[in-house]
Amino acid sequence: MAIDLERPGGRPTERFRVVRVRDGNRQELPDDLAAEEPLEIRLGGQVVAVTMRTPGHDAELAAGFLVTEGIVRADDLAGVRECRSDEGDGGVADVQLRPGTSATGGWQRNFYATSSCGVCGKASIEAVRVAAGAVADGPTVSQTVLEALPDRLREAQRVFDRTGGLHAAGLFWPDGELVLLREDVGRHNAVDKVVGRSALDRRLPLSDHVLLASGRASFEILQKALVAGIPIVAAVSAPSSLAVRLARESNMTLVGFLRPGGFNVYAGPERVTPS
Amino acid sequence: MAIDLERPGGRPTERFRVVRVRDGNRQELPDDLAAEEPLEIRLGGQVVAVTMRTPGHDAELAAGFLVTEGIVRADDLAGVRECRSDEGDGGVADVQLRPGTSATGGWQRNFYATSSCGVCGKASIEAVRVAAGAVADGPTVSQTVLEALPDRLREAQRVFDRTGGLHAAGLFWPDGELVLLREDVGRHNAVDKVVGRSALDRRLPLSDHVLLASGRASFEILQKALVAGIPIVAAVSAPSSLAVRLARESNMTLVGFLRPGGFNVYAGPERVTPS
Repeated sequence: MAIDLERPGGRPTERFRVVRVRDGNRQELPDDLAAEEPLEIRLGGQVVAVTMRTPGHDAELAAGFLVTEGIVRADDLAGVRECRSDEGDGGVADVQLRPGTSATGGWQRNFYATSSCGVCGKASIEAVRVAAGAVADGPTVSQTVLEALPDRLREAQRVFDRTGGLHAAGLFWPDGELVLLREDVGRHNAVDKVVGRSALDRRLPLSDHVLLASGRASFEILQKALVAGIPIVAAVSAPSSLAVRLARESNMTLVGFLRPGGFNVYAGPERVTPS
Repeated sequence: MAIDLERPGGRPTERFRVVRVRDGNRQELPDDLAAEEPLEIRLGGQVVAVTMRTPGHDAELAAGFLVTEGIVRADDLAGVRECRSDEGDGGVADVQLRPGTSATGGWQRNFYATSSCGVCGKASIEAVRVAAGAVADGPTVSQTVLEALPDRLREAQRVFDRTGGLHAAGLFWPDGELVLLREDVGRHNAVDKVVGRSALDRRLPLSDHVLLASGRASFEILQKALVAGIPIVAAVSAPSSLAVRLARESNMTLVGFLRPGGFNVYAGPERVTPS
């Protein structure tokens, strides 16, 4: 059986007829779902990865992915060419580097680790860690501002209320002003889109900003924020153990379970001021 | 800066001291977080992938990953060797195949797609689809049983209540009896552990079962269920568009927003009976 990946191109949602069951009663009605579709990320024409994502801001996603995975330096970005196949079965974003620059070793390290190594798994496991130093000290954010961020993110989300299926990443100033919001079925993709937009605009490192992720804070999210130089990361849900470890080692502030009325600070509490 | 990936080995949670802020007041106290750690998945000694996972059931995760990604056939599994590095920086699970068998072409296809292709992205994008036919007809599950599954899953989760950070995948009989529960920081890992355990026990295809995923239903989750032959997939949150498409093309039943009092059926409603 051939898969039918074909769908109307590039929309963040797609409408389906579904059977809704409530209190035992059935009703057929239309429902909007978050679109998910493969994007092929290329670097100078060569395929690097195929990722499942919600269409929209594909150039940002490709640029952000390559930067946050340590495959290219943000300063080397020249632009992104996008195309769709004739078959309409997905998208392609081809990242172009500036003349005289090239990919770092990160590509081979992360995606082509074929040789086994002397110590049990050591070399390959180190490969999950993208080279990045610690973030600089500052800025601070008040408890009051922090607690207001989730509502601001939700208000700004255009797609969420219709589908209930999209993660969001929001970049804020420390006074709570929203700079940039991106959405995706994948939480890490939403972060890549935020970092990619910023990288294409030559705004990295984002050392004066707060990143809010709508779900959990995993190692991957913290690492992407670290590569972008973001000092304060907040998540609506729980962090993982390794996210906390990475934040503490990298001078980052990590806030979890961020709700109106309270939150937990897992790393860098000195950046959170009482009011 | 060298990353310190070292942590006490193999526990699903890890305790941290955190700053808790409630109604403006701060308090330092211990908090249990879901552990996240890299696992290197090998096949016959060769590194295939490094995945971030919650320690526990690593052999199942490795076997399930290789099967659901279409890299090995479930029937070819012989066993899994596990080891940890001297540095304590992660785990390794090395999947062994039975004599005379080998990996399918899936490995190269999915992880080593280096050559660009004539049609814009076509070949690589098809690579995200693992070869699998449609599931067989049957069984059915009642609305009443379906609505009770999320509570049964939560009751059975040992780690969730402590950390709030773990996804779960539960395999059920159509009468609602729980067969197998696995947890992980990654939803797809939890599904891989369920499928891996079943594959190692020679119980594939799981054509008489219902799979419940604690979060959203993505294309990846549906594809893994399809490879395992699971006809009914239910999720507590929203499905993506491509998950619905894959379910409809593969004769699967897909239930979303499963809560006490109601749910939506996105594919295969004939398997859901009124009571």
